Amino acid sequence: MIKIGIVGGTGYTGVELLRLLAAHPEADVRAITSRKDAGTKVASKFMSLRDAGTGLRDLAYSDPADTDLKGCDVVFFATPHGVAMNAARELIAGRTRIIDLAADFRIKDAAAFERWYKIPHACPELLAEAAYGLTELNRDAVRRARIVGNPGCYPTVVQLGLWPLLEEGLVDAEHLIADCKSGVSGAGRKAEMGLIFSEAADNFKAYSVNGHRHHPEIVQELGRVARGPVSLVFIPHLVPMIRGMQATLYARLTKSDVDLQRLFERRYAGEPFVDVMPPGSAPDTRSTRAANVCRIAVHRPEGGDIAVILAVQDNLVKGAAGQAIQNMNLMFGLPETTGLTALPVLP
Amino acid sequence: MIKIGIVGGTGYTGVELLRLLAAHPEADVRAITSRKDAGTKVASKFMSLRDAGTGLRDLAYSDPADTDLKGCDVVFFATPHGVAMNAARELIAGRTRIIDLAADFRIKDAAAFERWYKIPHACPELLAEAAYGLTELNRDAVRRARIVGNPGCYPTVVQLGLWPLLEEGLVDAEHLIADCKSGVSGAGRKAEMGLIFSEAADNFKAYSVNGHRHHPEIVQELGRVARGPVSLVFIPHLVPMIRGMQATLYARLTKSDVDLQRLFERRYAGEPFVDVMPPGSAPDTRSTRAANVCRIAVHRPEGGDIAVILAVQDNLVKGAAGQAIQNMNLMFGLPETTGLTALPVLP
Amino acid sequence: MIKIGIVGGTGYTGVELLRLLAAHPEADVRAITSRKDAGTKVASKFMSLRDAGTGLRDLAYSDPADTDLKGCDVVFFATPHGVAMNAARELIAGRTRIIDLAADFRIKDAAAFERWYKIPHACPELLAEAAYGLTELNRDAVRRARIVGNPGCYPTVVQLGLWPLLEEGLVDAEHLIADCKSGVSGAGRKAEMGLIFSEAADNFKAYSVNGHRHHPEIVQELGRVARGPVSLVFIPHLVPMIRGMQATLYARLTKSDVDLQRLFERRYAGEPFVDVMPPGSAPDTRSTRAANVCRIAVHRPEGGDIAVILAVQDNLVKGAAGQAIQNMNLMFGLPETTGLTALPVLP
Amino acid sequence: MIKIGIVGGTGYTGVELLRLLAAHPEADVRAITSRKDAGTKVASKFMSLRDAGTGLRDLAYSDPADTDLKGCDVVFFATPHGVAMNAARELIAGRTRIIDLAADFRIKDAAAFERWYKIPHACPELLAEAAYGLTELNRDAVRRARIVGNPGCYPTVVQLGLWPLLEEGLVDAEHLIADCKSGVSGAGRKAEMGLIFSEAADNFKAYSVNGHRHHPEIVQELGRVARGPVSLVFIPHLVPMIRGMQATLYARLTKSDVDLQRLFERRYAGEPFVDVMPPGSAPDTRSTRAANVCRIAVHRPEGGDIAVILAVQDNLVKGAAGQAIQNMNLMFGLPETTGLTALPVLP
Repeated sequence: MIKIGIVGGTGYTGVELLRLLAAHPEADVRAITSRKDAGTKVASKFMSLRDAGTGLRDLAYSDPADTDLKGCDVVFFATPHGVAMNAARELIAGRTRIIDLAADFRIKDAAAFERWYKIPHACPELLAEAAYGLTELNRDAVRRARIVGNPGCYPTVVQLGLWPLLEEGLVDAEHLIADCKSGVSGAGRKAEMGLIFSEAADNFKAYSVNGHRHHPEIVQELGRVARGPVSLVFIPHLVPMIRGMQATLYARLTKSDVDLQRLFERRYAGEPFVDVMPPGSAPDTRSTRAANVCRIAVHRPEGGDIAVILAVQDNLVKGAAGQAIQNMNLMFGLPETTGLTALPVLP
Repeated sequence: MIKIGIVGGTGYTGVELLRLLAAHPEADVRAITSRKDAGTKVASKFMSLRDAGTGLRDLAYSDPADTDLKGCDVVFFATPHGVAMNAARELIAGRTRIIDLAADFRIKDAAAFERWYKIPHACPELLAEAAYGLTELNRDAVRRARIVGNPGCYPTVVQLGLWPLLEEGLVDAEHLIADCKSGVSGAGRKAEMGLIFSEAADNFKAYSVNGHRHHPEIVQELGRVARGPVSLVFIPHLVPMIRGMQATLYARLTKSDVDLQRLFERRYAGEPFVDVMPPGSAPDTRSTRAANVCRIAVHRPEGGDIAVILAVQDNLVKGAAGQAIQNMNLMFGLPETTGLTALPVLP
Repeated sequence: MIKIGIVGGTGYTGVELLRLLAAHPEADVRAITSRKDAGTKVASKFMSLRDAGTGLRDLAYSDPADTDLKGCDVVFFATPHGVAMNAARELIAGRTRIIDLAADFRIKDAAAFERWYKIPHACPELLAEAAYGLTELNRDAVRRARIVGNPGCYPTVVQLGLWPLLEEGLVDAEHLIADCKSGVSGAGRKAEMGLIFSEAADNFKAYSVNGHRHHPEIVQELGRVARGPVSLVFIPHLVPMIRGMQATLYARLTKSDVDLQRLFERRYAGEPFVDVMPPGSAPDTRSTRAANVCRIAVHRPEGGDIAVILAVQDNLVKGAAGQAIQNMNLMFGLPETTGLTALPVLP
Repeated sequence: MIKIGIVGGTGYTGVELLRLLAAHPEADVRAITSRKDAGTKVASKFMSLRDAGTGLRDLAYSDPADTDLKGCDVVFFATPHGVAMNAARELIAGRTRIIDLAADFRIKDAAAFERWYKIPHACPELLAEAAYGLTELNRDAVRRARIVGNPGCYPTVVQLGLWPLLEEGLVDAEHLIADCKSGVSGAGRKAEMGLIFSEAADNFKAYSVNGHRHHPEIVQELGRVARGPVSLVFIPHLVPMIRGMQATLYARLTKSDVDLQRLFERRYAGEPFVDVMPPGSAPDTRSTRAANVCRIAVHRPEGGDIAVILAVQDNLVKGAAGQAIQNMNLMFGLPETTGLTALPVLP
C-alpha cells in the first residue's frame, strides 16, 4: 500500500483525488489537510463521500501544521500555486515524493514562472529535476522523479493533440492555434461572480483572451519536441457544463503527403488512456466524463493544408486528478491503469 | 462468475448496466441483444464504452432470435414493458433467472397491469411468484426469486421515504403526498419533442398530472405495509438535469409523540445503500450521481403534524440498474455491495 | 413621463427593472444608485445594456449620497432588506413614492420583521400604511399607496394559487402545503459557493427547510383572506435553471361539491397577468420567461379531496421587477399593462 | 400596416417571428400556415403565445392550400429548404415579396445548391435577382429586392466578423478559420436523438466536421468582397445552451501596420445592430439573448500576425428571425430598428 497525503483537499481536484483513490487497491490515504476545515470530516463537507465501506466516512481534515506528511510515500498538492514549492525541499529530503497539481513545478524557467504567477519561485534549484507530468509524453522522467509537476488541464489536451505533428516536423510551428473550451469546474471551487449559475448557464464566451497562465507550459513543452521556436494562439472559452474540455487545434501542414490518421494511431498505439478515434469522428466530452481518457480525432478539411485535431477529456480526471494518479502508478512501479479503469458515466 | 444476458441494451438502463457490470468482479456479460443494432459493437454505439481493458470494446449486439439466453444464469431486461413477460416462461423453465427493469413483474394484479399499460399480461400465473425488487424492503423474497420485477425509479425513492412511517402506523395513509422531481434521463433514451434540449433546458414543469404509471406499484406496496387502504397524490415534475431524482413526501402524523429521526435511523441501520442524513439536512441529488444510494432526510416543520421526508437518488442507479445488480448480488449469494461501491461523481 | 429613481441597480432585479423600463413609454429613469459602482456606466457593467437607442447606454450609477431621489416621482429599491426603511420617511415627506422590492414593507408586524430579518425596523409607524403589492389581490390599497412593499417571488406565486380557495373557505387552512421550486436567479446576483455553476448545475435539492423568510408574509396575507388561522408547510427547492418558479400547492378540500376550474377562471377573469390554464394542463416555467405573467392550472387527482394547484412565473418579472412596474402603473393611473406586453421568450 | 404571411410557423424561427412581430407597430400578421396543425391556435401549441392583448391568442394555423398568401405584402418562409422556391414565382408575380429564412435563395449557383441540399432548384432563374439578406453588408440589394434569402445563423456571425478584414485586403483569404459554437436551438425544433437533453446537456462536441451546409454561402459572399479565391475551414460545435452563437475567427494578417480596432469601429459606425466592443473584450452570448444584435471584439494576440475576431449573437434573432424583420423594415421603407429595440434578457 502506498501511504498518501493530500494537501488542500477542499477543491475539486482534491475531492476528485479522494473519489479515485477510494477505488485504488494500493492507495492508503493517511492524511488530508485543510487549514480552514481542520477537524471537519471530509464526508460532512462533501455529501458524496458519506458512503459506507470506502474508509472515507471517518477521514477528517487535519491542520497542515499538525500533519506528518513526511511519513507519506507521496504527497499530492491540490492547492493553488505557491504552496507546493514551499514544502518541497523538506519533503523530498526525506523519502516523500511530490505530485503537484498546481503550477509550481511545471515551468522550468523561474523568471517565466514569476512573470505569469506574480510570485518569485521558492525553490528554483528544484525546477530542473522536477518532471513535467504529461505521462504519455514524458514517461521516463516521471518514472524516476521525486517531484512531478502535473500539467494543467488545457496543456494536457493541447499537447496530446499537437505533439505527433510537431514530433514529425509536419506543421508550421510558429502559427499554431488552440481554440479551447472548458466546463466550469475547470475554474475550481471558488465563489466568484462570473462562475455563478445565473451568469455562466445558457451562455458561451471566450475569456483570458489577453493571456492565460497555461500558455507558457504548453509552449515550453511543444518547443521541446519541435526543437525550434513555437508560437501558439490559445483562446480559452467557458462552456455551460460541469466537466469536460475540448481543444480544437489548427496547424498548417508543411508537408502534404502524410497520413495523419495513421500517424496518430501509431503514436498512441498501446496507450490505455489516449483513444485515437476512427476517421471522420467528432468525440464528445461526455464520453470521457469521470474517466481518465483523452479521445482524439484527426481531420484535414477538404484535403487542404490545414490539419484540424479534436481532443477531448474530463478536465478533472485526465486533466488533473486522474493523470496525477497515473503518474503515481508509474512512480511506484504499478501498472499504469491501476485504479483508473472505471468507465465514463454516460449519460 | 455469473453468466449474464442483457435484453435491449440500447437505452440508458442498458448502458448503465454495462458500465456497472464492467466493474463487477463476478459479472460475465455473455450477450446483449438489440434487434435494430444486431452486429454493431456496443462501443461503436456508445463512445464511453470504447475504453480498453474492460472487455466491452469487442462486445456486439446480437439479434434476440440468435441469442442463447437460456445459457445465462440471469437475464436483465432493459426493455420497454411487454418484452420480459413474453420470454419469462421459457427462461425460468431452464435455470435462468430474470430481472426485469420494466413493469411486467411489478404489479400483482393482471387487470391493473392491463389498465395502466394497455396490454394484457402474457403470463399472469407468474405474477404471484415474482418478487418486487425493492431490495431493502423485500429482501427475503428477492433472495429466493426466479423472477424479480425491479421497481420504477419513482417507486424506489417514494417507498424508501414513506415505508418506515407506514410500517409503524404513524401517518394518515389515505392522504399521502409525493411531490417528485426527475432528471430527464428518467424518460429514457427517446427522440421525443418534449425531451429535446431546447424544450427541456432552463425549464421546470409538472407532467402526467392526470396519472403516472408508477402510481399503482407504489400504492400496492405501501398498502402491503400499511395493512389497509392507501391513497397517494403523486405529482411528478421534470427537472433540467440529466440524472437525479428527489421525492418530497408529505404525510399527516396521527401520533405526535414520536422521534422520526430515530425511527428512520433504526429502520435503515446497517443498510449500505440507504443513508439517513443528520437532522436538519437537505440532501442534493448530485451527491448520489452515478452511485447506488438513496439519501433521506426527515423533517417536521415547526414541530407540527406534517412529516416531510426528502429522499434523493440517481434514477439510473438506485432507481434502476444499480438496484438491479444489488438484487442480482442477493440472488446469487454475493455480498450485496459487490461491484457497487464506487463513490458518487461530484461535481 | 414618470420620473424614476432606482436604488441599488447592480443586482438582478435592478437590471430587470432597467430592461423593462427601457420599453415603458412613460418611464424616465433619472437616477440609478450604487455606492460601489458610482461613476460606472450601467452598460459597462452589464453588456446587455449597451444597445443603442434605449437611452441606457449613457446612464451611469451615482453615489446615493449625491443623488436627488426626492426629485423623482417614484423610487424603486432593488436592494437587500434594510435599505428602503431607512430612506422612506424622508422620501414620502416630499411627494416621492416608494416601491420596495425587498422585505422592509411586506410584514405588518415589526416584531415579526425583526425576528425573521434580524434587524429592528427603522420606521414601524409606516408599516400600517404601506400596501402589500400583490397587485391582483390588493389593487385598491396599491393604487393609493405612498409605499408599496412588493411581494417576494415565492409569496406571489403561492398566494395567487391559494387565494381563491381560501377566499371561498373551501380548504383546511391549517394544513396547507407549498412545494416550491425556483431558478437560481431567485437567490440574487451573489458570489456564493452554493450558487456557482459547478455546484448548482445538474442538481436538485431542497433548501431553507428549517424556515424561509418568505414564510411570514405568505401566512400574513393568506390569514387576511382566510379570516382565521393559517398554517403552511413551505419547502423551497433549487432548480438548475436561470429564471422560473413553480409552486405545487396542496390543500385539503372541506367541501366536495365545487368546480375548482370555474372558481379560478371567475376569480381571475379579466386579469391580464394571471392566466388560468385549461383543465388538465401542466404549465411550464419557460412559458413565462421574461414576461409578467403567472399561469395557473387546477387539479383534483382522482376526484379526491386534495386540490393540487400548479402555478408558474418568471421569478424576476411577475415575482419581482415586472410586478413592481405593474404596481407603478396602477399608482400613476396608467393602464396596468403599460410597458409589460412583451411576449415570453421561448425557447 | 404591413400585411404579413408566415409559412411554416411551428419551428423556432416561426415562433420567434411571432414573438417579435407582436411587438412591431407596423406588422399585421394575417396568416400563418402549417399543414399538420391547420385549425390549431398558435397559442394552444405554444403556451408562451397565450398572453392577452397581443392579438396572437386567437390566431390559428391555416392549411397552406386554403391560405391567400398573395394578399400579403410579404411572406416569411420559416420552413425547411425547398419550400419557398416552389412558391416564389407565383407570389412575386403578384406584388408579394418573399423573405426566406431557409436556404433556397442564398446560393447563387443552382448547381452548388443542388450539391449541398440534394434537390434541384425549382426556380434557378430567380437566383440572380434574389438579395442575400445580410443587411449590413448588402443593404442596397435588400432594399429593392422582391426576394430575400435570409442568411443562415453561422454565415451571419462569420461574415460580420471577417468582412472588414477582407474588404481591406488585410488577410490571407485562402486560410481563414471559423471555429463556431452554437446553442442547441440552432438545430431547430426537431425530435432527434442527438438533440435530446440527456445527450446534449453537460456536453460539448464538434459536428458536421466533414462539411456543413452553411459553408458555401459564406465562401460565396466572402469571395465577393475579397475579389479573389477564399478558402475557409469551418468547424461548428454544439454548446449545451438554448440560444446563442459565437464565431471565433482566425485570419493571418498580410499587412502588419494596421489598427484593427479602428477598422472595425469605422466599418460598423452607425450600425444599430452591430456592436464593436472596446479593446480587450470578450463578449458573451447571453448579452445578445432575445435581441437583434451581433457583438464583435477584435484581438491580435501578443501583437502577432494572427487576427482573432470574436463575434456573438442570438442565433434565432440576428441569426434568423430578427434579421428577417430588419430586412422587412428596409424593404418597406421603415426605420431599420422598428420593432427591434427590446433589450437582451439577462440573466
